[in-house]
Parts: sequence; C-alpha cells; structure tokens
Amino acid sequence: MTGTFVIAQGGGPTAVINQTLAGAALEVRKRHPDARVLGALHGVRGIRDGNYVDLGQLSEAQLRLVGNTPGAALGSTRDKPDEAYCKLILNGLQKAGADAFIYIGGNDTAGTQQILSEAAGGSIAMVHAPKTIDNDLAENDHTPGFISAAEFVAGAFLSIDLDFRALPGIYVGIVMGRHAGFLTAASAAWRQDETSGPHLVYVPERAFDITRFIDDIRTTYDRYGRCVVAVSEGISTADGKALVETLVPPERLERDQHGNIKLSGSDLTSVLEKALADHLPGKRARVDAFGFLLRGNIGTISQTDAREAFEAGAFAVEVASEGSGSVALQYDESTFMRKVALADVAGKTRLMPDNFLHPQENRLSETGLAYFKRLTPPKFRVAPPFL
Amino acid sequence: MTGTFVIAQGGGPTAVINQTLAGAALEVRKRHPDARVLGALHGVRGIRDGNYVDLGQLSEAQLRLVGNTPGAALGSTRDKPDEAYCKLILNGLQKAGADAFIYIGGNDTAGTQQILSEAAGGSIAMVHAPKTIDNDLAENDHTPGFISAAEFVAGAFLSIDLDFRALPGIYVGIVMGRHAGFLTAASAAWRQDETSGPHLVYVPERAFDITRFIDDIRTTYDRYGRCVVAVSEGISTADGKALVETLVPPERLERDQHGNIKLSGSDLTSVLEKALADHLPGKRARVDAFGFLLRGNIGTISQTDAREAFEAGAFAVEVASEGSGSVALQYDESTFMRKVALADVAGKTRLMPDNFLHPQENRLSETGLAYFKRLTPPKFRVAPPFL
Repeated sequence: MTGTFVIAQGGGPTAVINQTLAGAALEVRKRHPDARVLGALHGVRGIRDGNYVDLGQLSEAQLRLVGNTPGAALGSTRDKPDEAYCKLILNGLQKAGADAFIYIGGNDTAGTQQILSEAAGGSIAMVHAPKTIDNDLAENDHTPGFISAAEFVAGAFLSIDLDFRALPGIYVGIVMGRHAGFLTAASAAWRQDETSGPHLVYVPERAFDITRFIDDIRTTYDRYGRCVVAVSEGISTADGKALVETLVPPERLERDQHGNIKLSGSDLTSVLEKALADHLPGKRARVDAFGFLLRGNIGTISQTDAREAFEAGAFAVEVASEGSGSVALQYDESTFMRKVALADVAGKTRLMPDNFLHPQENRLSETGLAYFKRLTPPKFRVAPPFL
Repeated sequence: MTGTFVIAQGGGPTAVINQTLAGAALEVRKRHPDARVLGALHGVRGIRDGNYVDLGQLSEAQLRLVGNTPGAALGSTRDKPDEAYCKLILNGLQKAGADAFIYIGGNDTAGTQQILSEAAGGSIAMVHAPKTIDNDLAENDHTPGFISAAEFVAGAFLSIDLDFRALPGIYVGIVMGRHAGFLTAASAAWRQDETSGPHLVYVPERAFDITRFIDDIRTTYDRYGRCVVAVSEGISTADGKALVETLVPPERLERDQHGNIKLSGSDLTSVLEKALADHLPGKRARVDAFGFLLRGNIGTISQTDAREAFEAGAFAVEVASEGSGSVALQYDESTFMRKVALADVAGKTRLMPDNFLHPQENRLSETGLAYFKRLTPPKFRVAPPFL
C-alpha cells in the first residue's frame, strides 16, 4: 500500500493503548514507507469532523515516547455510531483518501468497524485492534491494557492485606467491571497463602446476596481477625439488577447520558458501608472504590502488556493488507496474535468462565487462580508475617 | 549496652515503616552484638501484654526482607496511652529488662514516649523514630513514609490528567490528610505544564468554600476543556468545621470510636458529587477517594524513602545510647538526621507553611512546588500532548 492509514482510539484510556498506536504507526513506516499515517482526534469524531494529526511527522523516538505514555494520546470517544453516523465516518475516510482504518478499542469499537466494513464493501480495510482493562473481548485470551490494570489491583490488595494485618478490620475494595469480573478477580493473583487477603471475591458473574456477603465477612473475620474483600462495581442480585438499584431509592440513583446506572459514583460505597455498620457494628470497616486509579496508572505499566499492545498495533497493519478483521490475542503455551472476524468480537462480552470461580464459596478456583498467576506472575517478595 | 532493646510500631502502616524496624534491629546487632532485640506486637499493647517476637532470631537477609515489605510487620495500634496505661507499659518494659525502647510512629507516638520518658526518669532510653504519610511532624523537613505516598499521589494525578485529556470531564481526587495538606499538594509535583492537572488543589490549611470551589472548576473547565482537582479529606470551612459536617445531617455523619468524624467514608465523596451535579449539570464528573490505596502501596515504594526510613531506625539506636529523644529528618542542601527533644515533636502537628500556597488561587506557589519537586523529582517522561 502506498496510500493512507487512519488510526483512532475509542473507549476508556489504558496504560498501553498508546503502545498500540505506536506499534501500528511504526509498522506502516516499515512495511509501506511511502504511506501516510493520520491519527484521528477523539476517535471517529475526528474522522467525521476532519481532525487529524499527521503521525508521519513524528520520529521513531517520538512515537516510542507516545507509546510509553498512558492515556489515549489521540483523544477518545464514547460515541457508539449508528448507521447514519457511520455514513459520515465513511465519507470522512474517503475524503482523507484512507486505504485502511485501524480503530483501537473494545467491543463497541469492533462493532463500529463491523458496520463500517459492511458499508465500505471492501474499499477500505477496517481493522479493530483490541484494548480494554475489562478483559472482556470474545476470541481473546486476554486484552492489551488488562495486565497493567490487573497488576495495580493485585498489588493494591497485597498491600492492603498487609495494612489490615497490622491494624485489624474489614476492608472492601470496589473494582471497575460492569459485566465481567476479571479485574476484580485479579485481586487474588498475589495472595501469599490461604490466610492472606483478599479473602472474598464478588464478581458480576455470580448473583450477589447481601445477607450472604455479611455472613461470609463475619466468618472470615472470626477466623483471621480481619477480612479483606474485592467487589466488582457491577455486582448484581439474582434478578439481574445492579446491587445499588435494589438498595438506593430510584430518585437518588445516578445515571449517565445513556441511562445506565452510574456505577463509578459513591452509591455502592455508601450501600456497603451502611450494610457493614448495621450488621457488623463496632468493627473497624473501610470501603474504598478504586475508581480511575487503576486505569492507565503510570506507576504500574506491565512490560508484557506494553509489548503485547505494541505488537497488536503492528499486527493490525499486517491484517489490513488482507482486508477487514479484528486482532485477537490468543494463547497456546505462549501468547500469539491472530486475525478473527469482526463479527466474532463486535458487541460481544466475554465473561469469566464458570470454572474460574469456586463452586460454592466466593473466591477463585485453582483454575481461575492459575489464569491470573500466568498473566500477572508475582512481582514482589514479602516477608512471612509475625502476626 | 549489652541489655535489651524493645522496638514497636504505632499508627497507620506505611510503605517503609518496616525499613525503620530493620534499620534499628541491624544497628543494634552492629553496635551491641550481645544485646537482645525484642519486637513488641501491636505497639505498646504488646509491651503491656508481654507479646514479643525475638528479632535476634532473624538473619540479616530476613530482616532486610522485612524492611522491604510494606505494612507494619509487628502490628500497630491506635491506642493513645494516658498516664495509667503508660504505667502498665513501663512495668512491661521493666519486666522485659529493657534498656531502650524505640517506638516508630507519628506525633501521638512521640507523645507516648514523652510520658514514658518522664515516668522512667532516665532508667530506660525512650526514643521516637518518625513515620507518617501525613508529613506533619514538627522539627522534620519530611517524614519517612511520606515520599512513597507522595509519589503514588503524583503518579495518580499525572495519569488521571492524561485520562481526562482523552475523555474530557471533571475529576476530583480525595486524598488522606485531616489537618495537613502535604499529601494532597504532592499531586502537583509531576504536573507537565500550566495546562495539565491537577489544576486546583484544596487543603485543610485554607478555608474551603463550596461556591468558590464550583466557580474555580467552571473557570478551569472553560479554559482547558477539563478540570482535575485534588482535595484533602480534611478540608474545612472558615469556622473550622470539616466540610462534611456542614453539609451532611448530624444523624447521618459517621464517627469513629474517638468521636472524630470519619473522613475516610463516602460522605465527602457524595457531597462533592452532588455539588458538581447540581451546579455543573450535564458535565461528566467523577469523584474518587484514594482511601487506603496510597498508604503502603507495594508498587510505589521510593528508594529514597526506603533508605531514609532505614537510616532513621539506625540513628534511633545511636540516640538511645545518649538517652531519650526523637529522631528528626532535617534538610540543609541534603537530608540529615538529628536528635531533638521529645517535647518538640509530641502531639504537635506541622501544617504546610503558608508560602507553599498561592496567595489568592487554589494551587501551589513556586516555593511549595519546589519543595515537592525536591522530595519527589519527576520519575516518568511523557509525550507532549496532541490535544
């Protein structure tokens, strides 16, 4: 190809989404030295509105520095284009003279690429490069961005368990994840032994029951003198309603512009604080929502994650030369990249496999733990406790 | 000395309080090879109740591993002993045959040592070794534990600013600190330039006004298309009341066992979320309380902090050979340790100097910024923004 590559970023920023941008831009330079590489600002909005930066102006060193920077350097968007919007994007791509469009993001991003690839009828290669801290993309063993966020969570729970060993109490950490519990489950990856936290893990894949939750905590506290708990923001009751929805009066529930209940607000924190104060009175209890701290944190970028994200960008350029498709990170003794159909990823949510969770108790199974230990092998050695 | 050293840890755990323990234990071994070193479990409680571990049983390598582990390995306590309790402690120390007691902690810990040193009348050297993420000890330029926590905060705000550059909105991060704003102010240490966050910093040293807060955010948002804000949990209105106290109905306010308003709960988060939703409607806004994540986080241990904490423990042993006192970290072109009187540290809270803050605006002055940049020099390089 001697033509034009357009690259954009969609959805929530991560620690390594810019590695994918750098990987794609540098791979174009290597394979197609004469091609233009345009970065669209704020995802498909930039294409619709004709806002680009010319990535060809940047040296390799500059692009590598962009890669090492967390956040989404081109800006991102939460827009989920419908067919009419997609027509505007397609016009924009044609106006830019695009031969290929690489869109880095999650399953909504893959969905946009699917609509676009159908509309373009093969005239422009529409490629999806994976990115999400939620780790919830179909066809993928894991996704770029997840490992760095998972290491933040694993390190936080290891640290907090040491803190609560010293000053006993109950700690509940709320972790991002509306539908998939991978990131919350990663809290257990660096547990030292059976006595250490997180002692309990609650994920959206299992119906949440507040009575059971309190009982679990009471039992653990009685056994270990403390209890450290990881909870997904998306925990839902058996009828499929988000926990906050069942416990907060409707007029007080916060919603976003799409009408989704705002899980990142303080409602869930308050609800859990109140439940602990009411049912386990007199015990020191703290509930922290990790919020945005785990996403794109510059202090915990995994080198594996950074490398894989870079390679996913480079592989997207390879995919583009064969037409539209999605890059998937798969695993068979080692991680490798494969082209899969956009339709196999678009709009689909991959949940944690049932066998990742203990059949009765609110914790991981050996299978689940092995998965997280493979992705985030222990990074720190700590002393055996005196207590 | 050929006798017995007792060491204990008090107050909140940090990333490096165990370095001070290791530094003290290893210095005793070096200076007084025949002396016993006992670690009291859960601070002065362990002395009162006769619960010790014999640190003499650990190899140097084991002690160094303890040093590298966050949390308080001996366990900690929030007990603030009165004279009667101090009598029990003194009995305990005498029963253990102690010649010196090194107590690692903040200003309450120094206060306990002051009472004990008066009660002991010189028979046992009572030494305070400094520790607190709040950085609020009198006589100290900075305190062991602060730099690691400050780097967590600086890195988090750098990362969140990049995130909100990509997906614009308002972000408020609430940082620990009831009286002193050092840790919140450290959020600005790694700002890239005038356009980057945190754009606004609110600390307990300045009266907080919610109307001014909203106006500041509106102005910043209009100028930069986003606004990243650092707020101390201890922000108070002009009459000295904690903000939550003025905005939450008294019957809903959470209090700890000492009757102090619980700042670490979700009340402040809710209050600020509501203020943003009411006064800046339609804007994407997120409020995160950093909670315990910044304290003792294994992922962000500063090597400078670790070294200074170790040296503070070693210096405490040197101080003990001359009698009671407190170890202070002072600064004159470089950091050095000095013995100061317990009375000069005990129960005193050091606030941020007034000239650390801009006289009119809610941000740091050049003087303030220079202090934080000295303690936490930039650790990461990021790419100049496209946006």
